[in-house]
Amino acid sequence: MFARDDPDRRGGPDARRRPVAVFDSGLGGLTVVRRILRRLGGEDVVYLGDSARVPYGIKSPETIRQFALQDMAFLLRFDPKVMVVACNTASSVALDALESACPATVVGVVGPVCALAAERAGGGPVAVIGTEATIASGAHARALAAAGVGEVLTAPAPLLVPIVEEGRAPDDPIVLSVLSDYLRALQRARPPVLILGCTHYPLLAGAIAKLMGPGTSLLDPGEATADAVAAALAENRLQNPARAGTLRCFSTDNPGRFARLAGRFLGRDVGDVTWVGTDELIAAGHGAAET
Amino acid sequence: MFARDDPDRRGGPDARRRPVAVFDSGLGGLTVVRRILRRLGGEDVVYLGDSARVPYGIKSPETIRQFALQDMAFLLRFDPKVMVVACNTASSVALDALESACPATVVGVVGPVCALAAERAGGGPVAVIGTEATIASGAHARALAAAGVGEVLTAPAPLLVPIVEEGRAPDDPIVLSVLSDYLRALQRARPPVLILGCTHYPLLAGAIAKLMGPGTSLLDPGEATADAVAAALAENRLQNPARAGTLRCFSTDNPGRFARLAGRFLGRDVGDVTWVGTDELIAAGHGAAET
Repeated sequence: MFARDDPDRRGGPDARRRPVAVFDSGLGGLTVVRRILRRLGGEDVVYLGDSARVPYGIKSPETIRQFALQDMAFLLRFDPKVMVVACNTASSVALDALESACPATVVGVVGPVCALAAERAGGGPVAVIGTEATIASGAHARALAAAGVGEVLTAPAPLLVPIVEEGRAPDDPIVLSVLSDYLRALQRARPPVLILGCTHYPLLAGAIAKLMGPGTSLLDPGEATADAVAAALAENRLQNPARAGTLRCFSTDNPGRFARLAGRFLGRDVGDVTWVGTDELIAAGHGAAET
Repeated sequence: MFARDDPDRRGGPDARRRPVAVFDSGLGGLTVVRRILRRLGGEDVVYLGDSARVPYGIKSPETIRQFALQDMAFLLRFDPKVMVVACNTASSVALDALESACPATVVGVVGPVCALAAERAGGGPVAVIGTEATIASGAHARALAAAGVGEVLTAPAPLLVPIVEEGRAPDDPIVLSVLSDYLRALQRARPPVLILGCTHYPLLAGAIAKLMGPGTSLLDPGEATADAVAAALAENRLQNPARAGTLRCFSTDNPGRFARLAGRFLGRDVGDVTWVGTDELIAAGHGAAET
């Protein structure tokens, strides 16, 4: 984070106009962008979705870290004032590595939602569903324990991402039977809070809420993350005073498909999407490692 | 293909000892290697699984072609006598591009199985299941039409790859309900032949066979592909006279996980697996494009 007394690190009046950078393994991170745009309407957002190498959640920590560092290195070209890791898998596995390599504040999606969950759980257990890599990392369990949560229940839910990507309706019988299978052990514990630990899961929130029952409230990390971004900007006096921000999207695969499906995650039209090759991300990563 | 009268293109006695190269987006191609090893026990096989960028079947034709060309470029370093594209998606989308860029014979998994299916269908319809990209390419439909099949029924089955990767048993209720959903339209047509158009599907063959009924026989492309490799080697007098071949595996992610899961696809222990970075594949691709 920048020093409190030096809000304009670049020495010009335009530091507040620098963009908010956001990346994810694909489209899912747009659910986080949606919350950021709602909370911080004057900010310009630059988004990168690594659709050519999606999903991250089935890959090794080493590969996830490497890909996340490359994604970030590409976005650093836009001189962002904050770097948002919208991917739960990358936030769980790579946050330390990203923070070490980033000149701007890094905000992940795990810490903010875990703090909020601890508050909401009122001493009860907190449940978390996520990708294989997210759950295996133990990142949520550590953050929740640090926030004073005594009991954490976790369940990997690897089929949910491809199910959402396939576009199945939340009331499709297959969606319901897969969800029942993953949630069975969590249902029995009746946790007051369930964290949706993957950006794809908010699209299944209705079905998940029905299966968990009225005693469990679901937490979408997007909202807490947008709050954390707002707090980081406020602390550094870096809020953009503009009245309407812009959104610029890059995708490593198929920008047409990205633009077509983005609305489901973003809640509005995404506009033009620019293709960027993974070789360019890798080159950006090499460049960043050398400086 | 090499000229018939020049079986030893390199001019030495060792041309027959050059390896058979095989690549896939991940582990699935080992079902093809299994058939090749059974059919051609004296051959040395070099296998590359691109687990860091798996799956290919949800990506655009441009990205699939780029990845497949990079995979092949890496394997060309081993000076193979034949290049086997074990991935149905890459075979469907990228075969022309691979053939143009490869000095050795290229064998894909689509052509051989379609020829065999036409023979087996006896004038009846042929059904094909595969990834989104495979089915969208129309490669099977074209190959089957060219082989004289009058009616082709296709169905994309995107959840089957993550279901197999998750390690669910073929009699798991979720597996059965997903399969029923995908196969519904095909069941009604009662095709004499169903092509398993993805290397992961043979692991669900029992459940698929039960749902399709005894009137439909399933074709695993591995067997026809192994026959096509054998024919290409015989035609060029390149069979390896050795008594026992070797298998050497490379993976772009998590060689430990690759080695652990490989047995399910290969039917035996795979031995050591070597990691190779995707940046090395990309560099190999650039090198190949320049020569």
